[in-house]
Amino acid sequence: MSTIAESDKTVYLDYAAATPIDPEVLQTMLPYWDKKYGNASSMHESGRRAKGAIDAARAAVAEVLHCEPQEIIFTGSGTESDNAALIGVARAARAHGNHVIISAVEHKAVLESAAQLTKEGFEVSVLPVDTRGVVDVNECLKLVTDKTVLVSVMYANNEIGTIEPIKELSAVLQKRRAGGMFPLLHTDACQAAGFLPLNVAELGVDLMTLNGSKIYGPRGVGVLYRKKGVPLLPLIVGGEQESHLRAGTESVPLIVGFAAALKKAERLRSAESSRLTALRDFFIDRLLKKIPNAMLNGHPTERLPNNIHISVPYIEGESILLMLDRHRVEASTGSACSAYDLQPSHVLLALGQTAEIAHGSIRFTLGRNTTKEELEYVLSVFPSIVERLTRLSALTATI
Amino acid sequence: MSTIAESDKTVYLDYAAATPIDPEVLQTMLPYWDKKYGNASSMHESGRRAKGAIDAARAAVAEVLHCEPQEIIFTGSGTESDNAALIGVARAARAHGNHVIISAVEHKAVLESAAQLTKEGFEVSVLPVDTRGVVDVNECLKLVTDKTVLVSVMYANNEIGTIEPIKELSAVLQKRRAGGMFPLLHTDACQAAGFLPLNVAELGVDLMTLNGSKIYGPRGVGVLYRKKGVPLLPLIVGGEQESHLRAGTESVPLIVGFAAALKKAERLRSAESSRLTALRDFFIDRLLKKIPNAMLNGHPTERLPNNIHISVPYIEGESILLMLDRHRVEASTGSACSAYDLQPSHVLLALGQTAEIAHGSIRFTLGRNTTKEELEYVLSVFPSIVERLTRLSALTATI
Repeated sequence: MSTIAESDKTVYLDYAAATPIDPEVLQTMLPYWDKKYGNASSMHESGRRAKGAIDAARAAVAEVLHCEPQEIIFTGSGTESDNAALIGVARAARAHGNHVIISAVEHKAVLESAAQLTKEGFEVSVLPVDTRGVVDVNECLKLVTDKTVLVSVMYANNEIGTIEPIKELSAVLQKRRAGGMFPLLHTDACQAAGFLPLNVAELGVDLMTLNGSKIYGPRGVGVLYRKKGVPLLPLIVGGEQESHLRAGTESVPLIVGFAAALKKAERLRSAESSRLTALRDFFIDRLLKKIPNAMLNGHPTERLPNNIHISVPYIEGESILLMLDRHRVEASTGSACSAYDLQPSHVLLALGQTAEIAHGSIRFTLGRNTTKEELEYVLSVFPSIVERLTRLSALTATI
Repeated sequence: MSTIAESDKTVYLDYAAATPIDPEVLQTMLPYWDKKYGNASSMHESGRRAKGAIDAARAAVAEVLHCEPQEIIFTGSGTESDNAALIGVARAARAHGNHVIISAVEHKAVLESAAQLTKEGFEVSVLPVDTRGVVDVNECLKLVTDKTVLVSVMYANNEIGTIEPIKELSAVLQKRRAGGMFPLLHTDACQAAGFLPLNVAELGVDLMTLNGSKIYGPRGVGVLYRKKGVPLLPLIVGGEQESHLRAGTESVPLIVGFAAALKKAERLRSAESSRLTALRDFFIDRLLKKIPNAMLNGHPTERLPNNIHISVPYIEGESILLMLDRHRVEASTGSACSAYDLQPSHVLLALGQTAEIAHGSIRFTLGRNTTKEELEYVLSVFPSIVERLTRLSALTATI
């Protein structure tokens, strides 16, 4: 504890926003930048080697997901994968129907894709969540109509860490398929990867989004799992890459790096989940004792092993962040993707929180380098920050 | 010469398909993978540092292009930039008109984007080229109507290396603008970067595509220059990144690497262009002397310094490639993006070549590591390959 306080070491607790690349993954990528640089579409040895590397990466990803290699599409980001899953699939399935269901707590990439679909004549239903952020599978079933082509519910929430009942959702939707494939089920698993099983057959999903930057892999690469037969119109056209579903010269190092990162994340999954769950619960327990009016958001147990999300009434999450930053503790108010817009989180509002309470929220996300010592350091500085901000807030209220 | 023949060194002459990353560029990128890994949207020191790195890269790219930093949009590839320039701009300009003009020799990313637009109710006119691959600016002017929102002509052709008269095109289009902004002018400068000036104001373009993989930079990143005020609907939604025009967590290492690569390419541009022009002309001269029935495709002088594209009647380009590959010489038949589809190149057909002649074409593209010795080695093996294939072809014809 004292060692961190006395050092100038940064305590990074924002792993849900970005993970550092794993050193082994970086090493695996390196030769593909400068030595094995061929274009995978070229008809020569360098080209074949590049193609071989992509094929091997695709097979490795498929092995983790328990699917066929040709069901893996490499994209440029998780956001792009979400866009393809929503916009690309709905457009392609238009002949079947124009109805899409998304949960109220989806990532912006899904929300805005759905908004785009409404501009194109689709109807979008929003599936509510309970106060802990969990969707109700039976409510979902009630929303399904004969025109529903797609249901998109994330595997685990990026802000509050709540794990959604994807398997159960798949089972109830199956009843409505009547031998056909609609409604399709998509899940954004960006935050779940590395913590939850990614076996797409067991989960029962038709589409799944993953990205490199949350699994200690490279940023600038994502994956869309697309079950064979699922219709998809490409968002980016102009080449035969990725079975004509995503044009553009493949970035071999990023693809190789993604596969290496996913394999390692899967290998470490069980041990890291146990280790972080213990650290998480230790931290939550201590924090709630030290700050009695703080509330844990999300589900107490059905939550990601690395997620701690709390609200403290009457103070602003941004002020907490800035003061933590001065103590070299890096956290987040929720999604990094909207850190600067200062709107109350749509996820917290969906839980039924007031905008006022939602403003006072903070997210700590743990990762591979997180130690108990780091958390103890945060516990040593956090209460005084809250106390100071509460006093300031009371003062402002009086003025 | 003998040293290459006796060694097992590969002679890579496919720089237009992919360039190795520059060692300095790789070094510049490295710390952003594992040490400076923050998410640029995060409100803490790591986040601000990431944002600062992106801002600096954007400013560096803008300096090379002589534009404002906010006019630079980072994307995932040249293909994505082309898609945004065509599809994103045309959709956004729909209220003004539904007509788009592209040249007959564009990259597939532009051709297929235009095809997508026709599905959405746009009319696409194709501007022909002369036998050397050059568009006629006056012909273009004749195609422009009051409904033309966009003209897309590449800066230099990826297959035959012909440089298009973008400046002149801009000047004639200016006459049709009557104080307004339409028709807008887009140019795909992926192959031109590193050889031709990229000053967007002098060129007079409103949109310009660049990518990392042709300038000894990282693959998986592109740029779209978009003049202030040019309407654009994002292809990928779901975050505030890139001024809401391209959602997705920024890949800081790729963006930093792109900027470093572009700066270096610009610094080396003049010297490399002179060096490669001399090597190119030496190679063309010797080759045409050794193989009298070979024809140089494209413009004899208005061509990229690194491009040699020839057709040899009666033999197949793919067969030449495979035999060159056995001699460890790596070349291409034209665009790597369509290497495996075996269709005659649309570029060669646009020049007026027959499908038969177009099939017997091969492209050598030189780069920073190309030496005269390498070219001499190719000159020593190429004639016998052609002779052997010609004999084989005559034999097949007799049977």
